[in-house]
Parts: sequence; structure tokens; C-alpha cells
Amino acid sequence: MRFVVIGGDAAGMSAASKAKRNRPDLDVAVFEASSDVSYSACGMPYNIAQPERTMDDLVVRQAEVFRSKQGIDLRLGHTATSVDRDRKLVLGTTSDGRNFEEPYDKLLIATGARPIRPDIPGLDLPGVHVLKSLQHGRNIKHDLASRNVRDALIIGMGYIGLEMAEAFVARGVHVHAIDLLPRLLLWLPQEMSDIVAKELADHGVETSFGLKLQTLEYSSGRLKAILDQGDADADLVLIAIGVVPNSELAASASLDLGPKNAVAVDKTMKTSHPDIYAAGDCADAFHIVTGKRVWIPLALRANRAGWAVADNITGNETFLDGVAGTAVFKVMGLEVGRTGLSLQEALDEGFQPVDVVIKSRSKAHAHPGNQTIHVNLVADKPTGRLLGGSMVGREGVAHRIDALTVALHARMTVDQFFQCDFAYAPPFSPVWGPLLTAANQLQKSL
Amino acid sequence: MRFVVIGGDAAGMSAASKAKRNRPDLDVAVFEASSDVSYSACGMPYNIAQPERTMDDLVVRQAEVFRSKQGIDLRLGHTATSVDRDRKLVLGTTSDGRNFEEPYDKLLIATGARPIRPDIPGLDLPGVHVLKSLQHGRNIKHDLASRNVRDALIIGMGYIGLEMAEAFVARGVHVHAIDLLPRLLLWLPQEMSDIVAKELADHGVETSFGLKLQTLEYSSGRLKAILDQGDADADLVLIAIGVVPNSELAASASLDLGPKNAVAVDKTMKTSHPDIYAAGDCADAFHIVTGKRVWIPLALRANRAGWAVADNITGNETFLDGVAGTAVFKVMGLEVGRTGLSLQEALDEGFQPVDVVIKSRSKAHAHPGNQTIHVNLVADKPTGRLLGGSMVGREGVAHRIDALTVALHARMTVDQFFQCDFAYAPPFSPVWGPLLTAANQLQKSL
Repeated sequence: MRFVVIGGDAAGMSAASKAKRNRPDLDVAVFEASSDVSYSACGMPYNIAQPERTMDDLVVRQAEVFRSKQGIDLRLGHTATSVDRDRKLVLGTTSDGRNFEEPYDKLLIATGARPIRPDIPGLDLPGVHVLKSLQHGRNIKHDLASRNVRDALIIGMGYIGLEMAEAFVARGVHVHAIDLLPRLLLWLPQEMSDIVAKELADHGVETSFGLKLQTLEYSSGRLKAILDQGDADADLVLIAIGVVPNSELAASASLDLGPKNAVAVDKTMKTSHPDIYAAGDCADAFHIVTGKRVWIPLALRANRAGWAVADNITGNETFLDGVAGTAVFKVMGLEVGRTGLSLQEALDEGFQPVDVVIKSRSKAHAHPGNQTIHVNLVADKPTGRLLGGSMVGREGVAHRIDALTVALHARMTVDQFFQCDFAYAPPFSPVWGPLLTAANQLQKSL
Repeated sequence: MRFVVIGGDAAGMSAASKAKRNRPDLDVAVFEASSDVSYSACGMPYNIAQPERTMDDLVVRQAEVFRSKQGIDLRLGHTATSVDRDRKLVLGTTSDGRNFEEPYDKLLIATGARPIRPDIPGLDLPGVHVLKSLQHGRNIKHDLASRNVRDALIIGMGYIGLEMAEAFVARGVHVHAIDLLPRLLLWLPQEMSDIVAKELADHGVETSFGLKLQTLEYSSGRLKAILDQGDADADLVLIAIGVVPNSELAASASLDLGPKNAVAVDKTMKTSHPDIYAAGDCADAFHIVTGKRVWIPLALRANRAGWAVADNITGNETFLDGVAGTAVFKVMGLEVGRTGLSLQEALDEGFQPVDVVIKSRSKAHAHPGNQTIHVNLVADKPTGRLLGGSMVGREGVAHRIDALTVALHARMTVDQFFQCDFAYAPPFSPVWGPLLTAANQLQKSL
């Protein structure tokens, strides 16, 4: 049997490797358009922050290792352009201009996502960047190394925009960040969003909200962003307004698409065609709280989905429950985490949600180094079921959020969650830690 | 209605305060034998480590606040000596030698636990300490401040023994720790126990195992411990071989006792008499994994049980599921956590357990400051149910263990736990974090 994978990033290489581990006799081929495979994309902002690190230290496994040690027919510079479902062929072109046509028995589409590029003039000017692939990361790093970049303009304040703000500040580059939205991280309650905004300001990051980028132009050696109100100039511009799934190949093969045009897959990662799977940032998932299809492209899901595909094509039937949208990121000295639904998302999904925002501490009463932690917890009033939550604090957020994630997977009520016997020791938590304190307060609204 | 509480520590004061909050008209009286109430006992080793801190900064709320602000009739220096169930009276003596006799409608026994004092000669010599009450803490701190203590001998290497080893080292005191057990922290797998042992050794703590203390004596201005094999001498000796429940009062009132002679309570914290409750370190609990009665005296349970009693006597019926025995503690630069059953405990409870020990990382591939985390995960082979686990690492252990705790409360299988959508970002975790990696390995044994 020949298993062909289109896309050699997290989902694709996870699937290829695990398929080979499961069945060493399997014929596994991977077609990757770029020349990079298997790298930690999420590590790029931290790598860019440190000029002495090479971008390639983010490569987890070299292409040659996949070939020689794992026996995977990995072909770089191979762009798949169409899939012939009837003849079971992948067609494409190589970076040196040849066409190729390759047969498959089972196919995995793992084409990932790409940064949204707004349809405006000036996007191709030198010094204008996006960040998704390792090559994008190299471009930014090279730009910072090769000229005197004093200030950067970041368009978009999602995870990437905020992590890159930190990276630029670490490099001594002044940052002005602009977002179309009315405030920072809309899924956070206002008072928690304000804490993150203050952290940015305290590190010299200038932020502007409710502004739309209309044009980028070059003016006296500087980039100039024309906005719907006013303008801003900088030595470097990073466009970080989100990503879209690379699902055109799947669409052209008449596969069903789901939310945001991501490739629709069932719980075995199968698309609407029985021999074709999709996984990673190009594919959708079921949300464990709503049960509905969502598109939340995150790294763990990509890896997990890749494994599931490998298991399913090698006869170890595997179903994935879905995603909680759990995410954590660092903003300067803050840890920000979320899982499940925010209050607004819960309303939009038809729940009758109630929520609470509480202030707790990272350590016990009187323990040195104690920091504030804010928790937002959301539940469904009629059923008492936990729907989601978020946390902001200087320490003790990143892993605490996972306890809430498990509770969401277990469909716990607030009352059940409040019963959990959490770990306590003075250096690590108050007796009643942040999540239990929040659950206790939320019980009063139920 | 008059609610009388015997014991003014975590469970007692939690119950008294919450009862007053629930029903301000309630007549609430607390009889506490010592002169301290409402303090963070677990904070004592960290306080002792810092000579500039006063022991009293561990007091969460002053006695006078309970009286004046909360209207609680709090009487210090009042030792309850018996309970007359028929006449519904608490009888006792005061520190100034008077007898008292006080009526109750509902009674809470929250008499806590006391350190085990082995029945050996020399236990009352100056410089020999135990650590449970704030007064014990003051005694140790005073001893360190008032003379030149160069070395300390710690008998027992449980949580308190290890935390005090760290405190003594912080004070520049050499530590020799001795335990009757054959190795450190028997509930940890050997290789994880070895990591903790090495951490102690790296900080100059000398350890000896399989040795029993037989006598303490005074010899040329030093304390000398005669062991079953050899002897050891020091300026100061700390006996930390565990605690026993203060259940004699309950036993004398013919209340049922449970494991380790702790006062047996149901899920509402009621004892075998309908008007008498027990909570805190003197009372037992149901284990959420086995469903059986256990005695695991820990701070969160004491606070939680105190609240439950208050709710139950004021008409808000509350049931507590039970405890997972979740604990975390710091040993020098290590975080050590556990929840649920160890492999041996699972065997002893009649499960058919399998376990795995894996090595993972605290941060993403190539992220600076990455540390090793070891995880032990235990499951029941026939059912696949998670039974417990433990973790050791320099960071990222203390809160991760809570995710496993929630999974135990939810009675998750390893397969279900492995589906959880954990948070990932390079500064905080590998894509597949330590717990998921362990779950994935454990799946292979199921």
C-alpha cells in the first residue's frame, strides 16, 4: 500500500513517521513544496528574539533523517497542484519546473495554513513581513541583522503579533502595534485584557485599536502605513492578521469544506472521500464543548491528527474527540491562557452562560514572590456545566489552564470541578488556588 | 441554634467563619487549646528559612478579627476534654486552670493531628523539636536564633522532613536526615526517587536509610542519637516521622473511628452521631479512586471540609466526593507532585495496575532553559482507568499534576486523558507535554 502525504510540516511528518513505525513495510511518500520539514514554527518568535541562535535550531528532524533512518520517500520542492480522485493520483510541479504525477492508495492532505495578506497596495515592499513558515522567520531575522531596524509596525495583535512584539522589544526595536478590533484579545474580559495592555505599555509597546490598514508605501527610506484614520511609519512592518487554511487543493478535488473553508474531516480525520484524509492547520475539528465543527489551527491538534491518520490507515482505528481551543502564550512577563468558550462565544453558541472574574494569588498567603492571577470562568446557567475559562498572571497560569481543559473534556459541572483535590504547597499555590476560587464564586451565580 | 467548634485551625475556623457568613444570627463558639488560630501551618518551613520574617506573618486572620468583625465567640486556651452526647455539652479546662461546660446544638470536632513522638528516652531534651503547630515553629526559630546551630539531625523524610531540610540548609545549617524506610519517598518509582536523593546530596544534605532511632542523649554539649546501627550527633534534632489524628476526644464520646483511628465521617462530614461533625486532620475521607475510607491529612481538604460542615449545619446540604491525596512539595530546586495511587498502592488496593516512567521536557524543543520532567503514570489494565501518577522536575510540575487530579475525579481512562487538548507554547511545554507523553506510553501497556 502506498501512503502519500501532501505537506511536510507537523501533521504531515507526524503521519508519515507514525505510519512507518506502525507498518515498516508501508510505502510512504511526502511531497513538500518548500525546502523545510518538521520544525517548531511556534518557536520562531523566541528564536528571532535571540540573534545568536540560528533559525535552523528549530528543525526537530532533518529531511535526511526521515529518508535514511525512517525510509520515508520525502521530496522537497514538490508542490501538489491537483488530486485526481478517480485515478488516485497526485499531480504537481517541482521547484525546478518539472511536472510530477504520483499514485496513492491512501492520501493525506496536510497543506497547512497561510498568513492572511490583505488585498492592499505595497504588500511586496522590502521590509514587509509575515510569519508562518521557517523561511518567513529567516527573512525577518535576516532583515534585523542586515540593517538598522529601529522600529517595527505590527498589524494585528493575535498570538503571533503579541509574541513578535516581545521578540522585537528583546531586539531593542520599538514596536507600534495596530489592530482593527476595539481592544486587545476580545475573548478576555475587559479587566484582564487591560492587564495585558498595560504589560505591553510597560515594555514600551505602543498600541492603537479600531484602525484599518489601507496602503503601505515607501517614503524617504521608511515604510509608511496609510490607515483609515491617520498613518504610521516604521523601518519594518509585520502583517499578523491571522491565517487561512490552504484548502484549495482539497476544494479542487471536490472534497467537502467546513468552517472558514477548512477541509471537513470526521473523527478519524477522513475527508468526504474514503481514501483521502486531512490533518493539521488545513483541516477542521469538532469542538468538545459545542460538538460543532470549528477551525482552530494549533500545533498539538496538528500532531495528534497526523498520528490519528497514521493509525487509521494502518488498521488501528482511532477517533479524536476534538479540540477545546486551549492556548497559552507569553506576553513579556505575563502568561495568558484560555480553553473552551469565552462568555461571548458561549452566547453565540446558544448557551445561557454566566461568568465570573476573580483575582487570586500564585502562592500561599505570606509566601515571598506571590503574584496576582486573574481567572475568568464561564458556565452554562441551566445545567451548571463548565464551558471555558481564561487566566492571566505573571506565573502559574500556563499549566493550571490544563486542569480546566481536562474538566471540559470530562463535561464537568462547576460543582464537580470545585470538588477537585488540587495540589497545595506554599511555594506553588494558595490553599484555595485560583481555579477553585473562581469555581466557588461561579457557583453563586448558578 | 448554637454551633460549637472544638479546634481553631484550618477546618475549625473555616467552618466557624462560613457558618457565620451563611447565617449571621447563628451562635458560633470556638474552643481552641492553644493561643493561635487560623495560620498557614504549611508555610512554617519557608518562614523558618528566613530569619528576618516573624512567625506571626503566617497568621491569616487574628483572633480579635474573628471576634469583633465576625461575631464568633472564640476562646483561646480552652482545651475540650470530653463531650457529653446526651446532655449535648462540651467539657474542658482552661489554660488558667478553670473547668468549663458549654452546651451545643451542633458540634464540630476539628482537633487536628499531632506529630508522632516515638516512645524513646531523651525526647524532651533541649534542642529536640517537632513541627506541627505555630508554637513548634516559633520554638525552632528561637532555637536557631539564640545559639550557634551548626548541624541538624532530621528523623524522617516525609514532606515536613524534606521541607525542613531545605529550610535548615537555607539557614546555613548542615543536615543529616535519617529514615527507617529503605529509600526516599517510597511512593515514587526508584529512578524518580533517586533524582530527589541526588538533589539533596547536591545541596549537602547527608541521608541514611533503614535506620531506627532508639535513644536521644546529651553528650558534651551536643545531642546524640543512638540508632539501631551506630549513632549520629547534632546541635539540633527534628523528629518528623509523621502525624496521628487527635481523635481521643471523639473516641471517648463513642464516635466511630476509621483508618489510622481518624474520626469516621460520611460525605457530609457527619460522624456516627447526627449532631456531631468532624473535619480537618482528625477526620477521615473517601478516596476518589478506591471509594474507600482513607486518612490523608492535607490542608485543602481541611478547609473544604470545614466549609462543608458550615453548609450542612446551615441548611445548604453539601456532599464531598473525597480526596485524591494530591500533594506537591519543593525539595531545593525540584518540584515533586503526586495524585491518586502509586503502583504499589494500586496493587495493595486490588487493582491490576500497569505503570510507566517517562522522561519529558518542561519547554519546547530548542527553547532556552528547558528542563527534564519525569512522569510516572499508573492505570488499571483490565479497565484502562487512570489510577494515579507522580512527577519530578525543576519546573512545570506543581500545576501540571492538577490536570491528572481532574482526570482522576472524572474517572478517565488513559485513552480519554490522552485526548485532552492541553495548552502548548514553547516557553511552557513541548507540543506533546509530559503528561500526554506518559499517557501515550502507558497506552502501549494496556
